[in-house]
Amino acid sequence: MEICSEKKKALALVRSWNSRGISVGFVPTMGALHRGHMSLVEASLRECDRTVVSIFLNPAQFGENEDFDRYPRRLESDVSLLGRAGVDGVFAPDASEMYPSGFCTWVVQEGLTERLCGASRPDFFRGVCTVVAKLFAIIPADRAYFGRKDLQQSVVIKRMVTDLDIPVDIRVMPIVRESDGLALSSRNRYLIGGQRREATCLHEALMEVRDRFRGGERDVDCLTEALCGRLSRPATAEPEYGEIVAPDTLARPRSASPDAVAVVAALIGGTRLIDNMPLGGELEDIYLPPE
Amino acid sequence: MEICSEKKKALALVRSWNSRGISVGFVPTMGALHRGHMSLVEASLRECDRTVVSIFLNPAQFGENEDFDRYPRRLESDVSLLGRAGVDGVFAPDASEMYPSGFCTWVVQEGLTERLCGASRPDFFRGVCTVVAKLFAIIPADRAYFGRKDLQQSVVIKRMVTDLDIPVDIRVMPIVRESDGLALSSRNRYLIGGQRREATCLHEALMEVRDRFRGGERDVDCLTEALCGRLSRPATAEPEYGEIVAPDTLARPRSASPDAVAVVAALIGGTRLIDNMPLGGELEDIYLPPE
Repeated sequence: MEICSEKKKALALVRSWNSRGISVGFVPTMGALHRGHMSLVEASLRECDRTVVSIFLNPAQFGENEDFDRYPRRLESDVSLLGRAGVDGVFAPDASEMYPSGFCTWVVQEGLTERLCGASRPDFFRGVCTVVAKLFAIIPADRAYFGRKDLQQSVVIKRMVTDLDIPVDIRVMPIVRESDGLALSSRNRYLIGGQRREATCLHEALMEVRDRFRGGERDVDCLTEALCGRLSRPATAEPEYGEIVAPDTLARPRSASPDAVAVVAALIGGTRLIDNMPLGGELEDIYLPPE
Repeated sequence: MEICSEKKKALALVRSWNSRGISVGFVPTMGALHRGHMSLVEASLRECDRTVVSIFLNPAQFGENEDFDRYPRRLESDVSLLGRAGVDGVFAPDASEMYPSGFCTWVVQEGLTERLCGASRPDFFRGVCTVVAKLFAIIPADRAYFGRKDLQQSVVIKRMVTDLDIPVDIRVMPIVRESDGLALSSRNRYLIGGQRREATCLHEALMEVRDRFRGGERDVDCLTEALCGRLSRPATAEPEYGEIVAPDTLARPRSASPDAVAVVAALIGGTRLIDNMPLGGELEDIYLPPE
């Protein structure tokens, strides 16, 4: 496994594969890898000749009062995990390699990025779009893998790739969940004591709305009300949003259809968690066995 | 010569060269080609195995009250000129190919784009950066050629390419001038009657400041005053800016040095013209013989 911290070396490595017609899959991550990330790696290993994973905790997508300093950093164990999985290359730059002195260019989006997570995190998607555009230039892959847990991120990135003509196929993969339904996230490590149990309220709220949809409810107001009500049940939960959205535009649909998605965000004991589920079912989600 | 209006075909053409190690030069234009553009084409033909020219009148870089509708369109004669010059490929998309429905992603810059031309044209550099980033993805060239007449544009694009890790070498080429010093521009066609003669005030102002610098003047205020004074001499001239700037940051230097650049913009009978000259001399500029 090649490990690069320099952009030039990563580009040269991937180009050497490109030029020989060897297909390349790319999994961008912020490290602190869990089985959600590893499901993306496994998809790339399955679908591509070579797989590159980036590990870069991107300062540009954290707000001033967010958890950048506290976010888990485990480069050594991440790299060894990727080596055992059979990954071909790891790109792990430091911040000065990615944001050199005088950096002032940003990739921004109108509309899609202003709602949902963008409402409470105003610079988040600017940071995400910019770093992902950079990573796609440094690692010119055929396919790039993202988890559906970050639904808005995947919609934003698909739109960016279309709009900027970046020649990469975006693959959005199923959510990996603990046996009780909690979606895997590096931030789950912040949950202490009873918070871990209460964090299942996101999944429970999504399941309740899915069940109501299955029962015939099509009214978006009713479904939204049920979603938010269920989300705010635990004592330590502070719901941020609960909405029904169209899967490509993230707009609120006039009436609920199977491809509409229920999306939620909440603080659980101060830890910000997000999750989502298509009203037509969570059939493709992966539930891990109990530990 | 291959002529493509589809992004996919242009990308496939250039990739077929990339994969065989054939070097590619790229000249992005808005058409209405003049000898300034052709000097860029000639540089690419000289330095690269293959040369691609794009012709796209980019609506995103025109403001609401600017000359998009009036801007000269001469696709047929442009294409035949490029064919005679020995160009290998022309990419001439229409606006719906470049900005499909739902387009909402922009490349923006802080700082560099807010001064000089950016002050009077607030969305201009957003349009330029976005379309050039798109063109660099569609035409993955080794080198791209820009004219130094649009100094701020070349500084902005060099910064964008660095910041977004776009693997292309930006080549900034000398200004081509009429025998009386007027820098070639597609907008020179708008000049009627005495305006053509008065338009030389931009070049004359730059030459006067260069001469004062040669005479020992190093005070930026004095040089700026001379620049603006000379620029406003003709009756129909409305100066927009006249400044001394550092060549890479476009910031005002504390004192004038040979690499500092005098930059000017003025409306001549309503036609907006720009020009610039390093204080150290215009040695590299190309003056055409009198017609």
